[in-house]
Amino acid sequence: MEALGRTTWVIAEGWIPPYSHGPEPAMLSHETASLLNTGDRDAHVEITVFYKDREPVGPYRVTVPAHPAPAVQRLHRPRADPVATDYASVIQSDVPIVVQHTRLDSRQSENALLSTIAFPG
Amino acid sequence: MEALGRTTWVIAEGWIPPYSHGPEPAMLSHETASLLNTGDRDAHVEITVFYKDREPVGPYRVTVPAHPAPAVQRLHRPRADPVATDYASVIQSDVPIVVQHTRLDSRQSENALLSTIAFPG
Amino acid sequence: MEALGRTTWVIAEGWIPPYSHGPEPAMLSHETASLLNTGDRDAHVEITVFYKDREPVGPYRVTVPAHPAPAVQRLHRPRADPVATDYASVIQSDVPIVVQHTRLDSRQSENALLSTIAFPG
Amino acid sequence: MEALGRTTWVIAEGWIPPYSHGPEPAMLSHETASLLNTGDRDAHVEITVFYKDREPVGPYRVTVPAHPAPAVQRLHRPRADPVATDYASVIQSDVPIVVQHTRLDSRQSENALLSTIAFPG
Repeated sequence: MEALGRTTWVIAEGWIPPYSHGPEPAMLSHETASLLNTGDRDAHVEITVFYKDREPVGPYRVTVPAHPAPAVQRLHRPRADPVATDYASVIQSDVPIVVQHTRLDSRQSENALLSTIAFPG
Repeated sequence: MEALGRTTWVIAEGWIPPYSHGPEPAMLSHETASLLNTGDRDAHVEITVFYKDREPVGPYRVTVPAHPAPAVQRLHRPRADPVATDYASVIQSDVPIVVQHTRLDSRQSENALLSTIAFPG
Repeated sequence: MEALGRTTWVIAEGWIPPYSHGPEPAMLSHETASLLNTGDRDAHVEITVFYKDREPVGPYRVTVPAHPAPAVQRLHRPRADPVATDYASVIQSDVPIVVQHTRLDSRQSENALLSTIAFPG
Repeated sequence: MEALGRTTWVIAEGWIPPYSHGPEPAMLSHETASLLNTGDRDAHVEITVFYKDREPVGPYRVTVPAHPAPAVQRLHRPRADPVATDYASVIQSDVPIVVQHTRLDSRQSENALLSTIAFPG
């Protein structure tokens, strides 16, 4: 299969809920970015994170292997990250990929979900 | 009406909640892909599913009939599918269609929803 | 302001929850399409609804007046519509508009929301 | 990094829930627009708000500084705004930005979320 998608993606909305409710890890409040590489070359990905109140950090580097090796990479935001802070992400790859962003918010006793395809830059 | 949409679509985020809460089938945790064919030729669709930890499977084949025959096809992920596993889907059709992805998560006592248009590849 | 958007939009996913929980009308399960006309000519809009199990119906006709007259039109699905039925919508306008789709699902005691920009055909 | 995104964005769906449930400010029902400026020039942004029942207002003006100065701007809808009123937003910038829209609805005891990338006009 050809390499589908784009090489630059933007997630303008980022915010990690500062607390959780329910059994962990299933109900831990978190955000993820799902990266799909459908092509036959490994994707070398750089992620830059923008904040409102300080300079951007990164790029963080991750490799999404070509299939038939594993081709889906789910990036959980690490617990060490600042929570309850606005941030945004720019994701750049050397081959086309597709990026989708999801949040699980379990601050209250029932979880809420949001998801959206990142914007292709 | 002309055949609206595209012939290739990508859903990068896939995850079936591993358990449910509430009366079935209405409140069964599930994911669906809605496929719309507005044209006057049947759409022959192939779906390839990518996983993180093993090789892709498929393609699964489905036909979305041309209207005025039924034109909306809702694909429920079968119960036999692995749950709580990251996956992604590539949907390819021989005529343009439009694809939208939805998840109902009823792991807790109140359901949560997410939906997004698939990415046109 | 110029007329922003497109003249054809597709909402592939449609489903009206069959029951509700909580005080009406605020918590009535429903779906809406928000239509925005930013231009200086009235938008004459035709909506065709596709079903899985029967022929498409419509087109329904609605006018979204040019601003500075009211420019936002919210289409609530009428109560007479079949609920718990898969459907899809194609929205066609004679001038560019922007369309967004939202569902409030209050079948359980807490409401869930989904929203997505329609696909520009 | 180059300035990613577009200079015109449309959010067709706007509605601020009229009441809230849970501790404020975390659980106050609200809507936000996240604006990201990845370029090296400040973004001068104008926001025009359209209503169903009266003339559009604005433009409101906001500056999203270039990085490495703060580059993410989160616009909370002010409390003085009319709630439970349909509205739509057009966001215009002199340099490319990316815009994402989010709502937290806490009218019931558990919060619901929706989010979507704005439509690039």
